[in-house]
Amino acid sequence: MSDRKEFRDLTSPAKAHEAIASLDLEPEPETVAIADARGRILAERVDADLDVPGFDRASMDGYAVRARGTFGADEADPAVLDLVGEVHAGSEPDVFVDEGECAEISTGAVMPDGADAVVMVEKTDELGTEAVEIRTSVAPGDHVMPAGADIAAGQRALGPGTELTPREIGLLSALGKGEIEVRGKPTIGIVSTGDELVRPGEDLNSDAGQIYDVNSYTIAAGVEEAGGEAKLYPHAGDDMDVMEEALTTAAEECDLVLSSGSTSASAVDVVYQVIEERGELLLHGVSVKPGKPMLVGRLADSAYVGLPGYPVSALTIFRTFVAPAIRRAAGVPEPRTATVEGKLATEERYSEGRTRMMPVGLVENEAGETLVYPVDKGSGATTSLVEADGVVEVDADTEYLAEGEQVRVTLFSPSVRTPAVLAFGEDDPAFSRLLDRLKSSRFLSVGSREGLRRLRDGLPDAAVVAGPVRREVESVGLGSWKREWGLIVPEGNPAGIEGFGDLIDGDLRFVNLDTATGLRASADAELERLAAARDTDAAALQNAIDGYGFTLKAHESPARRVLAGEFDAGLGLRATAEKLGLGFVPVDSQTVRVRANPERVEKQGMKDLKAVLSGMEEVLADLPGFEPVDE
Amino acid sequence: MSDRKEFRDLTSPAKAHEAIASLDLEPEPETVAIADARGRILAERVDADLDVPGFDRASMDGYAVRARGTFGADEADPAVLDLVGEVHAGSEPDVFVDEGECAEISTGAVMPDGADAVVMVEKTDELGTEAVEIRTSVAPGDHVMPAGADIAAGQRALGPGTELTPREIGLLSALGKGEIEVRGKPTIGIVSTGDELVRPGEDLNSDAGQIYDVNSYTIAAGVEEAGGEAKLYPHAGDDMDVMEEALTTAAEECDLVLSSGSTSASAVDVVYQVIEERGELLLHGVSVKPGKPMLVGRLADSAYVGLPGYPVSALTIFRTFVAPAIRRAAGVPEPRTATVEGKLATEERYSEGRTRMMPVGLVENEAGETLVYPVDKGSGATTSLVEADGVVEVDADTEYLAEGEQVRVTLFSPSVRTPAVLAFGEDDPAFSRLLDRLKSSRFLSVGSREGLRRLRDGLPDAAVVAGPVRREVESVGLGSWKREWGLIVPEGNPAGIEGFGDLIDGDLRFVNLDTATGLRASADAELERLAAARDTDAAALQNAIDGYGFTLKAHESPARRVLAGEFDAGLGLRATAEKLGLGFVPVDSQTVRVRANPERVEKQGMKDLKAVLSGMEEVLADLPGFEPVDE
Repeated sequence: MSDRKEFRDLTSPAKAHEAIASLDLEPEPETVAIADARGRILAERVDADLDVPGFDRASMDGYAVRARGTFGADEADPAVLDLVGEVHAGSEPDVFVDEGECAEISTGAVMPDGADAVVMVEKTDELGTEAVEIRTSVAPGDHVMPAGADIAAGQRALGPGTELTPREIGLLSALGKGEIEVRGKPTIGIVSTGDELVRPGEDLNSDAGQIYDVNSYTIAAGVEEAGGEAKLYPHAGDDMDVMEEALTTAAEECDLVLSSGSTSASAVDVVYQVIEERGELLLHGVSVKPGKPMLVGRLADSAYVGLPGYPVSALTIFRTFVAPAIRRAAGVPEPRTATVEGKLATEERYSEGRTRMMPVGLVENEAGETLVYPVDKGSGATTSLVEADGVVEVDADTEYLAEGEQVRVTLFSPSVRTPAVLAFGEDDPAFSRLLDRLKSSRFLSVGSREGLRRLRDGLPDAAVVAGPVRREVESVGLGSWKREWGLIVPEGNPAGIEGFGDLIDGDLRFVNLDTATGLRASADAELERLAAARDTDAAALQNAIDGYGFTLKAHESPARRVLAGEFDAGLGLRATAEKLGLGFVPVDSQTVRVRANPERVEKQGMKDLKAVLSGMEEVLADLPGFEPVDE
Repeated sequence: MSDRKEFRDLTSPAKAHEAIASLDLEPEPETVAIADARGRILAERVDADLDVPGFDRASMDGYAVRARGTFGADEADPAVLDLVGEVHAGSEPDVFVDEGECAEISTGAVMPDGADAVVMVEKTDELGTEAVEIRTSVAPGDHVMPAGADIAAGQRALGPGTELTPREIGLLSALGKGEIEVRGKPTIGIVSTGDELVRPGEDLNSDAGQIYDVNSYTIAAGVEEAGGEAKLYPHAGDDMDVMEEALTTAAEECDLVLSSGSTSASAVDVVYQVIEERGELLLHGVSVKPGKPMLVGRLADSAYVGLPGYPVSALTIFRTFVAPAIRRAAGVPEPRTATVEGKLATEERYSEGRTRMMPVGLVENEAGETLVYPVDKGSGATTSLVEADGVVEVDADTEYLAEGEQVRVTLFSPSVRTPAVLAFGEDDPAFSRLLDRLKSSRFLSVGSREGLRRLRDGLPDAAVVAGPVRREVESVGLGSWKREWGLIVPEGNPAGIEGFGDLIDGDLRFVNLDTATGLRASADAELERLAAARDTDAAALQNAIDGYGFTLKAHESPARRVLAGEFDAGLGLRATAEKLGLGFVPVDSQTVRVRANPERVEKQGMKDLKAVLSGMEEVLADLPGFEPVDE
């Protein structure tokens, strides 16, 4: 590798912000129809260019008069005026009110010429059809809403930079604005690179190492959230000419070009070459984790930012450095509730000397305090996108954060809510169905053993624990059920397997589950039992099974490997075998328990979980091998 | 009027919520492309139906081996394996690794068949091109990220009801979902009624009492904000057949029909008749202010709600009763920051025995506390749409709210922000320009006198005061300028007017400004001066001017009436005369002062205002008759 690709001269985050702020992303204003204006930002001040209302409007039912003609009139000495016509709302007056005259008028109607006030009907009496007795005197303007009283022509109605919500749209409608000039949305071109990337919805050839393109759609959604317009460019691959073509086309058509995807050396080389030939590189490499390999520069007349390839890194860099610049260019204000304060639930050490954007999850305790825990599944994991709620920025000099330390979390979006229930533990189809019935929950499939460990440390609201348990953890039982487990084999059980004995004695390939899972704990216990019967030790039996040490983490995974013909048998549930149309050799049943953190049982989310658990019979009804347990 | 139209049997707000909740607005789920999925709500749980990664992936550069072949190997006693090929990221392995063999492999590449572990390159040495020395032993699975380690086929990925933000779109992309089933958006038909309504953008005939249709676009924007799809039906007028046709078409095509607009008796009659013939009326009239005349019912297979005609009433009723039902039908969660607590800045009395939805504005004091003040310009005013920030719900039994009382404000939308500066006072073109340079401000054009009164009561951050001032109010001067005022006359001054004297002595029609304005105060002072010179009193001179008592509120309004040929002269500014191409007879100059609330000068918004005021010379440069003043 060349020096360049190692990003030896890392730029500070502050300098990276400066570099991006120096780029010009701001598009021209545009004109939109009022029906499409919601959420847009006014480009310029809007003054009223007409009066609202547009005419002197009667604000009472009564008679339109010349005020002077009523002067001195009262109950004792009424004035008598000739009735010369009538005016209704929504029609043009066809009458002129002269001295000594009046016209009948209804609320909302246009004042007839000549008249300058309205006498309310309660203070009048008609004398036949041609005259009216007026029992009060009025001043000019009485009971008349003059044209422009709501807003008058020439008045400032809305300022530049105003976000158009239904209210502003109401005022613009009243002003008769059929269309309106708004801030343009910066156009952001997204060029994904990498031979191995396939667009979602297309067929994937995993055997050739293909993976779905995560960054294009994730970043496009982020661009739209920030007030930009995303434009996806055809997948560029690693072919130098194709990629150069995509980058330069995007630069011509967009205010900002983002590339992301492959981190392969050849792709990086092409980007460097294109930027250096046709633009300017302002910085390469920022001292943050994740996201070190970030490029900022200009490409033709466009701005350019190169994002890292791993999705979590790409989205973190995008949110931290690029989204604020898009918002500024679009005139969109920073979101209001984008941060939350909380206490760190576990200590955290780090010492790479880079600013760290630490992805974290949130959980609330009974007192409503927010606890914050790091989510670190490695940059390559896409699930951490949804298992984290935001990011804590940790200074490059901070090597240690203590448990209980107050931290500020920048939420991934203003709509992020702390999950009502946070559970860790065994992946189980029945529990998945329970979660579907809860409004907002998060479950981390870490296996029974790890779930219990985290419950002991006080982090989750609940743990899902299956099978035998080695150590006790203080908890409150919320509910339990049984599930049948055994060996999953090809349809029709062609090898005629009857149990673990056949795996030990025969020449069969087995696929196991991780030791953190409750299913594996039950399988280990079964081998202990067999070892005792055979007068040997369990380790010897494990060694005798080809593949006992080859473990997968998810409970359906062994079954799917059997389905793919890669193994003769795998550990799993009867429910999985039936779902996938495979054969099943029953071994035993194990109990799954939902165990609550004793300090969280009064949380609303936990009460909701308990309520949902009371409907367990219905949840289990069509799950083969599952049955309720009263404990 | 019939009994019915008086809404004698008013329903309680709680019962109105119940009636709307009993209607079914929920549409069928729909399928959208992943690129269009942002902001949508998942209709059903999404399970992974493939492993991510989709293949066993090398997580180090090195050699793919069978782990068994390395057992016992160490620095002292390395194993030697035959090198049989190489595998790169993004390509399909064309090699099988048998016992005693290995293959070169790069990070991210597919594990070749036969191999079950990777030895990192640092622990190896190539022996020529055909053999490799392995200086460590590895276990099966070492340095291999197994297929499904991120998320495995069969695992629950996202729950039903999840809002799709960029993060969820990232995970769905990783799972290869090109399209996704989401909750449908309820279709809301909006039928506006009323002969006098004209769509914004079309020509308005004010002489015939026409006004722009405010409700259709306002409510449509509110529908979209709540997660619905708005559909506008051609303007229905008051014609019975046309309106019946519009209502029944909307009912066939939509989940909910909203009608609003005319409150005329004939329109209400048609709605009643159509609902009763083709549907069911559940309630008419709710005990709330504003918004009493609200209808709830069914129309064919659709739900129906009739909104009041006045825009503020219509939007209040929509937000209070209809928007929550649309959100429920769309699966959209209630917005998080939709309320704010604050102290009432002024006492408030009310005793109509109805629940009151009191529109209020917000202002922050120096301590960051929120103060709340009622905004009541009457239901007919559209400007109160943008001058209020939210609504305080006041119980029907509460007749008095004390100053300082803590109230809860339901914001009009989660993006509502308390204005950085709240100013009251004289409408002035220079101050309007200053406001354009501030990020978020609110100015209420109430005239100099009323602005000073509110400043004395401690409500606004600042008051804009022009002309002579009768009483002193404790304040901090922020800046000032002069503006030239006089009589605005038709172009070329056809009547040869030279000053107020000509209005007093001649037969000319004059149009004045409201006594709350500083311009009027200066005009009154000028008449005092003339009266002294003529040895009479000012009242006599005022009476001698035809129209001195006919007043308008906005500073440009008299000029526009002169422009329309309705008057021979009007009170106004030189700047206005030049802007509108009118003649101008100068009388004098007056000083405009920006006076700060002494307890708010340290607010950030006020500091920003002060900074903007320092650039006054530039602001005034092209405003005729304006000049800076140092005081």
